[in-house]
Amino acid sequence: MKNNSYALKGNILYSKDKSMIIEQKHGFLLCEDGKVTGVFGELPKRFEGIPVVDKGDALILPGFADLHLHAPQYAFRGLGMDHELLDWLDTHTFPEEAKYADPAYAKLAYGQFVPALAAGATTRAVVFATAHTEATLLLMDMLEETGLVTRVGRVNMDRNSNPALQEQSAAASLADTRDWLRQAEGRYTHTAPILTPRFIPSCSDELMHGLAALQKETGLPVQSHLSENQGEIAWVKELCPEAANYADAYRRFGLLGGAGCPTIMAHCVWSDAAEQALLAEHGVWVAHCPVSNADLSSGVAPVRAFLERGIKTGLGSDMAGGYELSIFGVMVQAVKDSKLRWRMQDETLAPLTLPEVFYLATRGGGSFFGQVGAFEPGWEFDAIVVDDSEIVCPFELTLQERLERLVYLGGDRNVKEKYVQGRRVK
Amino acid sequence: MKNNSYALKGNILYSKDKSMIIEQKHGFLLCEDGKVTGVFGELPKRFEGIPVVDKGDALILPGFADLHLHAPQYAFRGLGMDHELLDWLDTHTFPEEAKYADPAYAKLAYGQFVPALAAGATTRAVVFATAHTEATLLLMDMLEETGLVTRVGRVNMDRNSNPALQEQSAAASLADTRDWLRQAEGRYTHTAPILTPRFIPSCSDELMHGLAALQKETGLPVQSHLSENQGEIAWVKELCPEAANYADAYRRFGLLGGAGCPTIMAHCVWSDAAEQALLAEHGVWVAHCPVSNADLSSGVAPVRAFLERGIKTGLGSDMAGGYELSIFGVMVQAVKDSKLRWRMQDETLAPLTLPEVFYLATRGGGSFFGQVGAFEPGWEFDAIVVDDSEIVCPFELTLQERLERLVYLGGDRNVKEKYVQGRRVK
Repeated sequence: MKNNSYALKGNILYSKDKSMIIEQKHGFLLCEDGKVTGVFGELPKRFEGIPVVDKGDALILPGFADLHLHAPQYAFRGLGMDHELLDWLDTHTFPEEAKYADPAYAKLAYGQFVPALAAGATTRAVVFATAHTEATLLLMDMLEETGLVTRVGRVNMDRNSNPALQEQSAAASLADTRDWLRQAEGRYTHTAPILTPRFIPSCSDELMHGLAALQKETGLPVQSHLSENQGEIAWVKELCPEAANYADAYRRFGLLGGAGCPTIMAHCVWSDAAEQALLAEHGVWVAHCPVSNADLSSGVAPVRAFLERGIKTGLGSDMAGGYELSIFGVMVQAVKDSKLRWRMQDETLAPLTLPEVFYLATRGGGSFFGQVGAFEPGWEFDAIVVDDSEIVCPFELTLQERLERLVYLGGDRNVKEKYVQGRRVK
Repeated sequence: MKNNSYALKGNILYSKDKSMIIEQKHGFLLCEDGKVTGVFGELPKRFEGIPVVDKGDALILPGFADLHLHAPQYAFRGLGMDHELLDWLDTHTFPEEAKYADPAYAKLAYGQFVPALAAGATTRAVVFATAHTEATLLLMDMLEETGLVTRVGRVNMDRNSNPALQEQSAAASLADTRDWLRQAEGRYTHTAPILTPRFIPSCSDELMHGLAALQKETGLPVQSHLSENQGEIAWVKELCPEAANYADAYRRFGLLGGAGCPTIMAHCVWSDAAEQALLAEHGVWVAHCPVSNADLSSGVAPVRAFLERGIKTGLGSDMAGGYELSIFGVMVQAVKDSKLRWRMQDETLAPLTLPEVFYLATRGGGSFFGQVGAFEPGWEFDAIVVDDSEIVCPFELTLQERLERLVYLGGDRNVKEKYVQGRRVK
């Protein structure tokens, strides 16, 4: 038995695979040195005497991974929802992000975002900041304090944007990125950088090539946006006429995953079979962001196809294209919108089920961070303790029924305790 | 100045029409004898000295109307969401509703539903009970206590259902309905009956004709379901081969609105131009239930077309086809699903906007109850006081921006006070 051992006692649920949920009523979830030892019906003899945190009838679940969100957009979540993507960027997003040139504003606004993220069910997040080094470091400092494990990107964008926000040149963008990476180096335990070209329309070819070189040099992961909206896709086709599709445009720049380049692409709403094949081949993670994809009238991604092809897939809030920071809400939307897609667009792809979206929220997205998102022996210990007692019912429920109700009727407000890598953070 | 006058002071918003929201910052909403006197920037001289309830910076909105919900289904809300309508009726709905033959169970379960409805933003509701007289009266007794104004239906269903729930014959169903109406008569101030044939597949021709006769005799309003799901529509076509469409089948039975027969039809997801024309001609109210229509994979109703044709339209939670009792959540879903419908099914019908769904939730649904749902002089005084201060923001918001955020990010939990016909009920 290692140091720093303890057990959480309660009703434990986690995904075994995309269709199967493991459950243990009134069980023990054991933690040793930040790793999961296992789930047990009775406390094994060799662990007698360790601290046991008895959570009674509460549910104990893996923490959720949010693979795509924009921290500066939290400020205007739930506003301007009557726009499509490209209009919404111009009228709401770019003007708001320009404000983060002022560190005082960044401190105020990130001071509202970070506690909200910390309070909920999310234990891992991959975050866009803005194109401002100081504000990005400030955000990373604040996230570090929460104990969550995050990847944060200072955004690169040197063309086709608001002049107040856009970087002056590819060279300046790359130099500032290197400066940011130097300042971040050695500064954090739980927080790390990720290279973040905003999306192809915002990044010149020179910038994209420079980022690919920087990626090779540093081995850093990459995040960007892919095939979210039809207007955007048509624009990329104009900008990169030689590419077979949008993903291929990233590939040609050397920024579509592959060995040594873990990559997240958000959305993939309109990724066809050829683009899906590229994503599978390059081991790219798709961040499925259904709330945003409905809010911005983008459409519904063919997640069933991603799962069938073995494309790595997790969920993203896409704060604030999505108004909803809670991954509980994102799970519900993922199910509902897969039903509408099935009914209205393509009856060959069956709707997603509750076990599948629970998998996406935990194990699917968690895999970007390694062995994360399930209570398998040796995996990192990320757990949330959830009190669902407010969701009254006149009859007995199974644990999986309680999980379904929690997802539909509960939310971040029901999260009472949170553990990341074995550390209690809430 | 009449007796029982008072004013609520706060930030007042209501729909003038389907696209325009009236607002008054720090204004006075005056009530006399349960009716709205008007909205004023300053308290008019002749009202000096009346009680003023100062709600500070809170928002004051009309109460919401829920035009379609099933009270007995609250018990299993958020469960079994991986089914379509007809399967879901057989596996979840009918077995649960059969339990309400036992008044003790009804008391337990309605004892959970009624306080939840009372606590939220809904001030008016049109409710399905079950096919049990005693349980229906119990529900009506409990609703009466809340002070909400409701219409409640004892459900008629004499065929194609669970034997434990189904009524024995058309004659028995009609006799029991008359008995229920006799027992309800004179018993309530705010609660009234509504005739409730479940839907055509559940009701024999004899029962439908009998209910039409009862409607003519009593002048009671009618509620039922229409064109929700394609399987259901195909079934109705088999059952009523002579009808031009599903609505026409109701019309032929004499149960599709018209003079002296105010009628609500829930769903109308697949109502085509001919069916829409019938609905407009007969003055039928459509209860648009987007949460349910996504949950049960039904589709998305063409609400823009209803509005353009002048069809009376309100919102319904459709508890528990919809898991969401809050009309705030229904409004959000109505906007989002109209965007997906526009993107995936029919680009001729533009998405709904926030002002439009606010109109549907208040004035649109309220019209079923008369002059209800807006702060127009002489209209019934239904108001909610909402504290949105938890929805933090680093910049100043207009009142309409606060309303948008409240809808997206807030909910029933933000409702601090509630008034119905001038009576404070929360």
